[in-house]
Amino acid sequence: MSKRFTHVVNFWLKNDLTADQRKVFEDGVRSLGTISTVDVFHLGTPASTDRPVIDRSYDFCLVCMFKNKEDHDAYQVDPVHDVFRDTCSSLWEKVLIYDSESV
Amino acid sequence: MSKRFTHVVNFWLKNDLTADQRKVFEDGVRSLGTISTVDVFHLGTPASTDRPVIDRSYDFCLVCMFKNKEDHDAYQVDPVHDVFRDTCSSLWEKVLIYDSESV
Repeated sequence: MSKRFTHVVNFWLKNDLTADQRKVFEDGVRSLGTISTVDVFHLGTPASTDRPVIDRSYDFCLVCMFKNKEDHDAYQVDPVHDVFRDTCSSLWEKVLIYDSESV
Repeated sequence: MSKRFTHVVNFWLKNDLTADQRKVFEDGVRSLGTISTVDVFHLGTPASTDRPVIDRSYDFCLVCMFKNKEDHDAYQVDPVHDVFRDTCSSLWEKVLIYDSESV
């Protein structure tokens, strides 16, 4: 049985972004959900929950679930992903990824 | 429209766990997927992808998606969640949570 592949990406945007630049980022990251191999897509901002073990310091949390690793690998080289990287990679200060396969 | 609530939890287990203890943890964390308000459930271990921005140091990544925050709040106080905390909280060294609501 193929393992589900989950790609969690937390973005910390640069502090000095204009509202327009922030919109470019948000439109760009949202476009990733149109890539055909994405099975489940979530784009969020920190929730109101607040405990010591909760990190609320990021700006956006992206979660893409794929039916298998091959679908994830296709997503990484999709032209939509290339456009996102080209237009948005200058807008974040830090990105942190957790990729996991189901057990 | 209600916002989808996504709960990402990364667990770093203690280094000296026995195979039996590790199984207790894995069974416990997997049981969380039986809580009725969970809409999408993923339990994974680090994938083979390996780039500087990817953190592969954790042992388990849990992703629970809920239709809204109320469903998440019900999950946190579900008896199954209490049992998990009681039987497994001594088994991890560190836990890190990212809660986000869809935008």
